[in-house]
Amino acid sequence: MNALADEATRLLQSAARDAREAAHVLSVAPRPQKDAALLAAAAALRARIAEVLEANAQDLAAATGLTPAFRDRLALTPARVEAMAKGIEEVAALPDPVGRVLAEWTRPNGLVMRRVAQPIGVVGMIYESRPNVTADAGALCLKAGSAVILRGGSESLRSALAIHACMAQGLREAGLPDACVSVAPTADRGFVAAMLRAAGLIDLIVPRGGKGLVTRVMEEARVPVLAHAEGLCHSYVHAAADHAMARSLVANAKMRRTGVCGATETLLIDAAIAPALLPAIVADLRALGCDFRADERARAVCPDLPAATEEDFRTEWLDAILSVKVVEGVDDALDHIRRYGSEHTEAIVTQDEAAARRFLDRLGSAVGMWNASTQFCDGGEFGFGAEIGIATGRLHARGPVGLEQLCTYRYQVLGTGQTRP
Amino acid sequence: MNALADEATRLLQSAARDAREAAHVLSVAPRPQKDAALLAAAAALRARIAEVLEANAQDLAAATGLTPAFRDRLALTPARVEAMAKGIEEVAALPDPVGRVLAEWTRPNGLVMRRVAQPIGVVGMIYESRPNVTADAGALCLKAGSAVILRGGSESLRSALAIHACMAQGLREAGLPDACVSVAPTADRGFVAAMLRAAGLIDLIVPRGGKGLVTRVMEEARVPVLAHAEGLCHSYVHAAADHAMARSLVANAKMRRTGVCGATETLLIDAAIAPALLPAIVADLRALGCDFRADERARAVCPDLPAATEEDFRTEWLDAILSVKVVEGVDDALDHIRRYGSEHTEAIVTQDEAAARRFLDRLGSAVGMWNASTQFCDGGEFGFGAEIGIATGRLHARGPVGLEQLCTYRYQVLGTGQTRP
Repeated sequence: MNALADEATRLLQSAARDAREAAHVLSVAPRPQKDAALLAAAAALRARIAEVLEANAQDLAAATGLTPAFRDRLALTPARVEAMAKGIEEVAALPDPVGRVLAEWTRPNGLVMRRVAQPIGVVGMIYESRPNVTADAGALCLKAGSAVILRGGSESLRSALAIHACMAQGLREAGLPDACVSVAPTADRGFVAAMLRAAGLIDLIVPRGGKGLVTRVMEEARVPVLAHAEGLCHSYVHAAADHAMARSLVANAKMRRTGVCGATETLLIDAAIAPALLPAIVADLRALGCDFRADERARAVCPDLPAATEEDFRTEWLDAILSVKVVEGVDDALDHIRRYGSEHTEAIVTQDEAAARRFLDRLGSAVGMWNASTQFCDGGEFGFGAEIGIATGRLHARGPVGLEQLCTYRYQVLGTGQTRP
Repeated sequence: MNALADEATRLLQSAARDAREAAHVLSVAPRPQKDAALLAAAAALRARIAEVLEANAQDLAAATGLTPAFRDRLALTPARVEAMAKGIEEVAALPDPVGRVLAEWTRPNGLVMRRVAQPIGVVGMIYESRPNVTADAGALCLKAGSAVILRGGSESLRSALAIHACMAQGLREAGLPDACVSVAPTADRGFVAAMLRAAGLIDLIVPRGGKGLVTRVMEEARVPVLAHAEGLCHSYVHAAADHAMARSLVANAKMRRTGVCGATETLLIDAAIAPALLPAIVADLRALGCDFRADERARAVCPDLPAATEEDFRTEWLDAILSVKVVEGVDDALDHIRRYGSEHTEAIVTQDEAAARRFLDRLGSAVGMWNASTQFCDGGEFGFGAEIGIATGRLHARGPVGLEQLCTYRYQVLGTGQTRP
């Protein structure tokens, strides 16, 4: 066991050192070179699709005793490989986030201060057995000028290695080091533990997966982490909501896709509007197949709703279930969100601008929305083109993490011989 | 011992919960209220100066066996108390960093996306026995809308509590909760350990002090940290440097103050210019009392310089000693900085713009300077008004950490009923 752990640590340290050297080259690579690598990787994925599907078939054959949902996430099809290739091409088409001048000002002594976007360095990506993340995260980090070490679920290792071979081919064709994008060379879980301890070797860890995975990474990591452990999102229907808009927004926020982190899990509705509006919202959602967990006041309006426990309001359902609570205005809604929420995304539905302002200004969450569906919390919908994840921590980046958020900055100070008095 | 550690943890958790409640109030406090608290705190410091000096005298009396430098840092004088009061007033005069719209754009579906500056929440400040940090850090966090828990060196606890009493008086007079600024209620070192483990209770740790303190915090913290462990800064004199400018910049960068983190510790000088320029630089610095550690090639030019060991180039002298190395151009200088530097601040001296560009674009450090003294790496000199520290990590903030860097952001998404397709 110790020998295994030592071996995993040795493998990680070796991979991280190679990644650091590669990151040094990649950090100053011009945009055309990075884009050439991405386009060549997409072409390689298409050309080597048989290889990729064969590796995936082996993964699927070896993965016994898994749930159908798990197998579905693991499985590749020609259409899914094509989607990966297209995704890589879309990243190539995005603007280069590196080198942007974020701010510039001149001091009274003539010094010009310039804040410039810069790659983070070496990123460690830890995810479950979703082969497409190998391509998505590899492409985003490459474009952002950072090397990435990808560690997907062990059940998908053959698929990840086959997809990685295409990325590596793209890198080589563009004259960039292979180690810009690397896949963990072992399925040993000690490798993940070694990544989490690799302060100084890895600059940022991005975990992507279920709450268990992300929470474990957050608790154990000695390296900065960008992530969200859960998306317990709220839609709050204020007394001054437009009824039709509220019905349409809640239905979309809950039921468009129930398994995404931006899906609404709890409906808060003002007491003043609940009798007139809640029955219609419930009917809309029921027609879409949604079940409910409602507090006493909501059940006073809709007596056939199942009763909610305290724990239900702490539950990220990720399913066709909605917790429902009647509240007494904006501050009461904010109190509930503060106590039960996950600082991910919350929406207010109202025609009252002052109420919306108060809600948005006092909300601590990464994303607050006014008259919009919480399901818009997504890098693509924000206009970032693609995202590597969504962050709910307080530092560096919050909300969707796209190319800009995958960068850090440095200062360039331009003088003419100034000395400090 | 375990009972003591448990008690320290209990005290920290209680302080952190109070700080979280206070942060909630402070995060939405309007600027005039925050400024009123700061101005009242400065007035209280002046009014209660006798109390503060008496507490400091008790700290000094209890602190036996300390070095003169340590006692000097610990000691307060009327002038130093006045400087603290003035510093707090200067923070009050700075713009409010909270609520600034950092970016705003509209999506094709009409959603308006707005990125808004927001307080971080609860900050933990860990520092050595410098009473002024209590006032400086307390004022900066307050203005930035975050609650702060201050844990200074145990030798300065009475001074810190006396200064804190003035800050608390200012908060009360402005109608803000006392717990916006709190001082660790115990000198027990277990309190620091509890702060470092307080993920979820404390959002950011800022350590300020020597390399030992900062390194320990970085290694043990489970909470994000903004800091620099050392400032091993380089000044690089390029072949195309103006001789007079190079002499003046190197003398300032090394000798203006040798104990600050932005002081140059290593001089890199191009082989092409060393014979003509290095003797003059050495003579200038010698006249200011500087000693040297030089590599073989530098000693070939100036034979009376003491020989450097490999370790000397890894040493942050914080003293009147300069490591000297002859290099072969920009890339060689960058290689040395990459291998031996601390990613803090490095300068190039040259009249060749292409060389300067190459140096600045390929430098990974938080701050790169062209024809300016490395001692300009300071929040005040950057125009930030004041700084809580300097960061050399890769995430969130790099270089001087002022009010803007003490903030995070959130998104406000303004819709008109959009649902996601």
